[in-house]
Amino acid sequence: MSEKKVKEIFDQIRNEEISDEEAMLKLRLMPFEDIGFAKVDHHRELRQGAAEIIYGAGKTPEQISEIADVMKKGGQDAILITRLSGESAEIIQKSQPLEYFPQGRLGVIGKFPKPDCNGKIVVATGGTSDITVAEEAAITAEFLANKVERIYDVGVSGLHRLLARIEDLMSADVVIAVAGMEGALASVIGGLADCPVIAVPTSIGYGASFSGLSALLSMLNSCASGVSVVNIDNGFGAGYLASMINHKGEKK
Amino acid sequence: MSEKKVKEIFDQIRNEEISDEEAMLKLRLMPFEDIGFAKVDHHRELRQGAAEIIYGAGKTPEQISEIADVMKKGGQDAILITRLSGESAEIIQKSQPLEYFPQGRLGVIGKFPKPDCNGKIVVATGGTSDITVAEEAAITAEFLANKVERIYDVGVSGLHRLLARIEDLMSADVVIAVAGMEGALASVIGGLADCPVIAVPTSIGYGASFSGLSALLSMLNSCASGVSVVNIDNGFGAGYLASMINHKGEKK
Amino acid sequence: MSEKKVKEIFDQIRNEEISDEEAMLKLRLMPFEDIGFAKVDHHRELRQGAAEIIYGAGKTPEQISEIADVMKKGGQDAILITRLSGESAEIIQKSQPLEYFPQGRLGVIGKFPKPDCNGKIVVATGGTSDITVAEEAAITAEFLANKVERIYDVGVSGLHRLLARIEDLMSADVVIAVAGMEGALASVIGGLADCPVIAVPTSIGYGASFSGLSALLSMLNSCASGVSVVNIDNGFGAGYLASMINHKGEKK
Amino acid sequence: MSEKKVKEIFDQIRNEEISDEEAMLKLRLMPFEDIGFAKVDHHRELRQGAAEIIYGAGKTPEQISEIADVMKKGGQDAILITRLSGESAEIIQKSQPLEYFPQGRLGVIGKFPKPDCNGKIVVATGGTSDITVAEEAAITAEFLANKVERIYDVGVSGLHRLLARIEDLMSADVVIAVAGMEGALASVIGGLADCPVIAVPTSIGYGASFSGLSALLSMLNSCASGVSVVNIDNGFGAGYLASMINHKGEKK
Amino acid sequence: MSEKKVKEIFDQIRNEEISDEEAMLKLRLMPFEDIGFAKVDHHRELRQGAAEIIYGAGKTPEQISEIADVMKKGGQDAILITRLSGESAEIIQKSQPLEYFPQGRLGVIGKFPKPDCNGKIVVATGGTSDITVAEEAAITAEFLANKVERIYDVGVSGLHRLLARIEDLMSADVVIAVAGMEGALASVIGGLADCPVIAVPTSIGYGASFSGLSALLSMLNSCASGVSVVNIDNGFGAGYLASMINHKGEKK
Amino acid sequence: MSEKKVKEIFDQIRNEEISDEEAMLKLRLMPFEDIGFAKVDHHRELRQGAAEIIYGAGKTPEQISEIADVMKKGGQDAILITRLSGESAEIIQKSQPLEYFPQGRLGVIGKFPKPDCNGKIVVATGGTSDITVAEEAAITAEFLANKVERIYDVGVSGLHRLLARIEDLMSADVVIAVAGMEGALASVIGGLADCPVIAVPTSIGYGASFSGLSALLSMLNSCASGVSVVNIDNGFGAGYLASMINHKGEKK
Amino acid sequence: MSEKKVKEIFDQIRNEEISDEEAMLKLRLMPFEDIGFAKVDHHRELRQGAAEIIYGAGKTPEQISEIADVMKKGGQDAILITRLSGESAEIIQKSQPLEYFPQGRLGVIGKFPKPDCNGKIVVATGGTSDITVAEEAAITAEFLANKVERIYDVGVSGLHRLLARIEDLMSADVVIAVAGMEGALASVIGGLADCPVIAVPTSIGYGASFSGLSALLSMLNSCASGVSVVNIDNGFGAGYLASMINHKGEKK
Amino acid sequence: MSEKKVKEIFDQIRNEEISDEEAMLKLRLMPFEDIGFAKVDHHRELRQGAAEIIYGAGKTPEQISEIADVMKKGGQDAILITRLSGESAEIIQKSQPLEYFPQGRLGVIGKFPKPDCNGKIVVATGGTSDITVAEEAAITAEFLANKVERIYDVGVSGLHRLLARIEDLMSADVVIAVAGMEGALASVIGGLADCPVIAVPTSIGYGASFSGLSALLSMLNSCASGVSVVNIDNGFGAGYLASMINHKGEKK
Repeated sequence: MSEKKVKEIFDQIRNEEISDEEAMLKLRLMPFEDIGFAKVDHHRELRQGAAEIIYGAGKTPEQISEIADVMKKGGQDAILITRLSGESAEIIQKSQPLEYFPQGRLGVIGKFPKPDCNGKIVVATGGTSDITVAEEAAITAEFLANKVERIYDVGVSGLHRLLARIEDLMSADVVIAVAGMEGALASVIGGLADCPVIAVPTSIGYGASFSGLSALLSMLNSCASGVSVVNIDNGFGAGYLASMINHKGEKK
Repeated sequence: MSEKKVKEIFDQIRNEEISDEEAMLKLRLMPFEDIGFAKVDHHRELRQGAAEIIYGAGKTPEQISEIADVMKKGGQDAILITRLSGESAEIIQKSQPLEYFPQGRLGVIGKFPKPDCNGKIVVATGGTSDITVAEEAAITAEFLANKVERIYDVGVSGLHRLLARIEDLMSADVVIAVAGMEGALASVIGGLADCPVIAVPTSIGYGASFSGLSALLSMLNSCASGVSVVNIDNGFGAGYLASMINHKGEKK
Repeated sequence: MSEKKVKEIFDQIRNEEISDEEAMLKLRLMPFEDIGFAKVDHHRELRQGAAEIIYGAGKTPEQISEIADVMKKGGQDAILITRLSGESAEIIQKSQPLEYFPQGRLGVIGKFPKPDCNGKIVVATGGTSDITVAEEAAITAEFLANKVERIYDVGVSGLHRLLARIEDLMSADVVIAVAGMEGALASVIGGLADCPVIAVPTSIGYGASFSGLSALLSMLNSCASGVSVVNIDNGFGAGYLASMINHKGEKK
Repeated sequence: MSEKKVKEIFDQIRNEEISDEEAMLKLRLMPFEDIGFAKVDHHRELRQGAAEIIYGAGKTPEQISEIADVMKKGGQDAILITRLSGESAEIIQKSQPLEYFPQGRLGVIGKFPKPDCNGKIVVATGGTSDITVAEEAAITAEFLANKVERIYDVGVSGLHRLLARIEDLMSADVVIAVAGMEGALASVIGGLADCPVIAVPTSIGYGASFSGLSALLSMLNSCASGVSVVNIDNGFGAGYLASMINHKGEKK
Repeated sequence: MSEKKVKEIFDQIRNEEISDEEAMLKLRLMPFEDIGFAKVDHHRELRQGAAEIIYGAGKTPEQISEIADVMKKGGQDAILITRLSGESAEIIQKSQPLEYFPQGRLGVIGKFPKPDCNGKIVVATGGTSDITVAEEAAITAEFLANKVERIYDVGVSGLHRLLARIEDLMSADVVIAVAGMEGALASVIGGLADCPVIAVPTSIGYGASFSGLSALLSMLNSCASGVSVVNIDNGFGAGYLASMINHKGEKK
Repeated sequence: MSEKKVKEIFDQIRNEEISDEEAMLKLRLMPFEDIGFAKVDHHRELRQGAAEIIYGAGKTPEQISEIADVMKKGGQDAILITRLSGESAEIIQKSQPLEYFPQGRLGVIGKFPKPDCNGKIVVATGGTSDITVAEEAAITAEFLANKVERIYDVGVSGLHRLLARIEDLMSADVVIAVAGMEGALASVIGGLADCPVIAVPTSIGYGASFSGLSALLSMLNSCASGVSVVNIDNGFGAGYLASMINHKGEKK
Repeated sequence: MSEKKVKEIFDQIRNEEISDEEAMLKLRLMPFEDIGFAKVDHHRELRQGAAEIIYGAGKTPEQISEIADVMKKGGQDAILITRLSGESAEIIQKSQPLEYFPQGRLGVIGKFPKPDCNGKIVVATGGTSDITVAEEAAITAEFLANKVERIYDVGVSGLHRLLARIEDLMSADVVIAVAGMEGALASVIGGLADCPVIAVPTSIGYGASFSGLSALLSMLNSCASGVSVVNIDNGFGAGYLASMINHKGEKK
Repeated sequence: MSEKKVKEIFDQIRNEEISDEEAMLKLRLMPFEDIGFAKVDHHRELRQGAAEIIYGAGKTPEQISEIADVMKKGGQDAILITRLSGESAEIIQKSQPLEYFPQGRLGVIGKFPKPDCNGKIVVATGGTSDITVAEEAAITAEFLANKVERIYDVGVSGLHRLLARIEDLMSADVVIAVAGMEGALASVIGGLADCPVIAVPTSIGYGASFSGLSALLSMLNSCASGVSVVNIDNGFGAGYLASMINHKGEKK
């Protein structure tokens, strides 16, 4: 569409219907993306996944279902919906073939792709209460065609549980470390694993956990190299970034 | 002295020199501790160690030296001075037989006592920069007649260093875990050791360590049972409390 | 079980069925705890009490009841359930002989043990609103076989109430000081008692108490020696640590 | 001066030189205080003491000396200078008969007045490091003609020291409680004394005292009635307010 | 009662039924207040008003009614109940002659006393939303026999409303300045009034008011002399302190 | 009315019925606004719009309706009600011709005025969740007779969307930039637009957004010149200020 | 230059030397600003004043002098240097005709322009210590061709000083309110003045002023309409924005 | 060495010199890493780079030089020293062939390796003051054999500067976004680039930047996917993590 407009200007140049100055002005006044930043648009599609992922929070089930319909008409085979409550999921299921994952509060319309790269993402949690956030990360990564391994409830106050899984950790290509309370898991894993570690603080805890602030600060202060941090409870962001790293050098 | 005064009142009662009302008034008007709270005074001597420990911060070398002289005349064999700068120590050394410990910023006049109980206090640090605070704790505990074992630079991002010392940790009666940055050491040790763990956050770090706040919150949120926390950089307090616990059941 | 596996490897060595290199690799690849950290496992049982204590928050009554059944089959005589709501307790009581303590939000299946050491733990509170947290600490300590004495509502703004109980305080082996608002109780008790004081800030208060932050900071800054602090509202942690200290030198 | 202007307008009204509307406009356009808020001005003199007190911080010794000269010409007998460094004091002393109080960082030109009311202000501190702020309060109160009694170093972790002075506390008309660290002094005194207590948090402490924040929050959360709080280290403000309360009902 | 016990001991001394040592021990072991701190007890009654004021928060209507019954039997004519919800008040009214003040969330059983001193307390608010806290202060002060004048909704962004009441402000003996949001009211009144100003920050506001923190900090930083601050929303504390100051020099 | 009183005093002066001193005293004792600050009153009417805008939060529908009736009798053609819930709006609609705007939570009684100045206010948001606050700003500005253009959902993580609207931004006279989360929108717009930018942080977000604190700090730290900030979620304040700036130089 | 390149592409189109696709690709690969965002560039020059204002902090006097030389060669008549220390100024003065303003820490090379619009900017401060920031604002505004009036030391605790200048305030077109401590000045002025008020919190104060946080929060919570806030101590930003508003409708 | 010890035990087993129980005990008592966690050790060497990187802060030049000597004897060709002051560098240069990079406060002994993978790391900064941190990141990445491209001073308030480099950004494999103040750079780059973005908040700024807190929160709240955050000013950590990601899929 916009290419057509630009070509029309080229035609006018060619046909000498407009002066150079007029041509330049016309280009300048066109909507930004029409001029040339197709790349912006294109990578948005690939990467931001606007066409594939719906942020469910604050949307009614009806709105979500409509967006999904539009996406499906646009050719999408699989759609991920994050921050989706069970009640909303039930309503959507009446009109969409939605699979709902209550622990991660995620819904998927269509099929999960098969892993398309060799790497493995490990998702680890400190406690059982962190699993909600961990599942958001894990299912997001699976939806983005990654092999995911879960190592849950391996908090640092019972180190033997974590060490029992050391083989799994050390063979990972990316680790997502999910923990509330003191958030020490990220540092310990950062010292054991030989790959990037994405730390996700959770709001699990009470008192001086201050809704995840304690875990957040802990993780930012990790002495282990290779650790970086995303927002409190941001399982989706961690899964997305992990997938991006995991696909590096394999598929682009 | 005060007992004498009370007995004088008793005499006056007995001799019917004063009425009940007068006796009661006299008792009320006596200085508080004279009536009966000798125990308060007594335990202060034993426990607060006002006679034995001088908090050096904010005192001139001259003031410290004078206080020490008074203490020595009062019969003290050994005096501990905390938060003592090297410059002050040098000046005091001109008039007192002071041994100075630059890492822990402590000075000792007189001899260290021999350990008088069987227990062992382990002092562990996450990094080498935490050693200043750790030495304040360790030397305080030694001064209070405890056997102390140091396990320094065993931060959780290099777990094998900590695990290599697991025998030492598991045979401790009290552990003092000193760490800045993410403060995860306390949780990991709390999960390994079978004794009370006193966590000391340090102000070591930069950025989001916020002068020890990150380590402090981490330690307060420890999922490991048996962990409690003292103020940031409070090595003395940790050493003192560790000694109190270590002597329990052995000497009283 | 794991010992058996290791011995099989030893047999293969002895029988020269495998090379040294193969033996070493096998040992390395065995789950961590199988090699030798039985001690870790063992102490976990003794200390972490995973077999004895269930953290009730976030678990359904059905889940709790199931875990309790498993424990009982494993030979446990007594099980403590913390952070248990009255509603959950009622449901559990249909299938388990549960005694419920509404003030401390705790349930106990089975019998309390008799105190097995001579020491005494005193639990003190500043106000009546702090009693919920105090009871969590007190009943936990009783469940762990300690003699417990309660001194409630002795806040520092009415000092005579606290001083009226000074005998009880001074004969304690451990004191748990529970207070919200300004949290001064820990300092005052720390100055009176001759034993370790575990301070528990509570979230009781309003305005500038900032959900327990005020009490927490107060307690961390206590000038009294021998005071350490656990997380806001962490009655269980205080009771557990107090029991650990109280049993020191008596039973191990 | 301004009264003169208003009377001129009255004259013009009387002489019918101006209309009512013109008179009203003239009044409106006069500087605010000229119209009628002489009381504002007057009380400023009495109360704000702009003529008597110089806030020394940020002023050069020369500026201070000049202001003092102007004040003396205006008839002031005594001038108080707060937040005055020793160096500045020495320079001012060359041109002014200044008495310097290094502990309170205050200077006084002229004589202290005699107490002009019967009440007594007690200034208490938790530790010796709080004395700087306490002296600022005490000398300010003395300068404003109050009888002041000092009870220093009576922190709550050594309660017997405070109780030994209970008679002095209970006979006070106003108490200023100065404390850093955990700031518990204000609550304890608030529970003992039968008069208004002005709490002054100090920035004394380290670690989790966060430059006085801990003491400030403690004091604001005091359960004792009759306690109010001024800014951290604001000894002058406390002394001023105490004087205001102490003079109530006696001199006005 | 306790005096009786002490006199019995005196009798035993007189009758030489016990030795001095025994007498001294008996005195020491008596409940604290029995020995001599009658003054403590006495002032508690007068001042802490434990017999007159019930803190309603966290108490059931039944508990409150019971306490009131006990107080009335003890001779109390008037009882103030703070932080009392309308629902609780209705229930209590069935068994007690309770007058309920919904704006201040206060209930009064019995009659208000007449003002017993000449001074006047002014209660001012910045906005209409602050009136809840202001009424808590005002009615508390009235209950404690003070003359109270209300100046509501005179926030500093409409200065003429405040200035219109300047006569009332300047004739006050104590002012209580209640304000949320930016809390500037305290400073402006502090600059206008010639008496102690008790500032009460409220949690009114949104966004960067951070539940009263903004107003609290503002008030602590007031440049006006004579201003002190109580906890956020602490209307009762302000009313109580104001009464204490107002009665100074008049009744004791 | 008040002018009449002043003129009566003038009469008395003229008729020499009162002395100058008496006249001055009478003027001083008159209510503040009666003396001369008509200007204050006048501008309040024009600017504060007390007669035109009702802050709905905390008012019952009945109260709002009553206030509106009074305003209408006073001659107001249009009344804006902010922070109005849908439920309240429905009740008011029974007695008032109210148009309700659910997104901005605003109600308008009467007609919107036509824009009375040439300038254009652009309201931009980072996300769709910020629209509530944005609409509060936009409708407020429209109610105050401004031309408003909305550019919603142009957050900086999809820069092409913002750049596509660059013409609209660059032709604005004032921009209101509404954003939660990282709040970067204000800086980016501040760098593109050639006019004052009013930044409104919103409480949209989770975790480390800390209820708008993150966006607030971002906006205050904007490196772009010409940016200033209002309170979190304060759409009304932004719309009001934008109108004030937009009308500058055009209508006064 | 870049226009030339674009025209070359146009020539190639015209001469059919390249296909439409090639032309489009070439345009896309050109540096961003070459394509058409001349407007961006242009407004940068006009508005951001990169050519006119040098941010002095972190630059050596030599660097500043060099940048000034380049600017002067580029045709600049007047250059403003902010955050310039006296030492740096002296060095620059050796090579540049620099006028230095120590109070505002600003230097100006060349002449100040005459005001080119009718409006007046008033800069007000709460105290004398805020004058540094105020002068940065005032001189910036003067440098940008505005008439500026200073009203210093009119803090709200001495309201009569502010009211004495009410005529000046009410005739302003923009007010910059500079205050530390409690920051109430912005609200009071916002209630008096009939124009936009730019509030500048300063870091002046101590204790609970927390380096300007108290003033910042106060100003953000102002109940007065028309007030917005810039960063702590950001005098330049306030002066710049004030100039932008003041020139609105007059010069563009 | 340790392998030798294990083989000795195997020999003893084979020779039936020890029982299985004795063998097991011996293995348990050996230093942790000797048993089998060679992998731990090995990866530490490769990854933690303990042998290659020296954290310079808090070490004397002499200590650094000694450590370097040991490393060189151990076969290291190149050694990186971080947080190295210019003064220390000069001293070290006397005994070591050290190249010093003052902007990044880094020293390198030996030669930089050539890039050993195809990917490109882009390091971008918002302002010129952020370059110190950026250079720490960039040189670390170069030292770890990566191709690095610098895009400095492209802050979001001058968007055209950033967009001019869009080709460079979009061809990156990893981007390190370094910014202080409002930290918006990370979000904008996160929306443009198609690869992982590592955000580094810096402590650059003043006032409400609160030493990097503002930038930190901004970056954590980024709406752009693929963004994660390291500690404030942690250039080394960002460079290290970027290298880890960049080498993924290429070299292992």
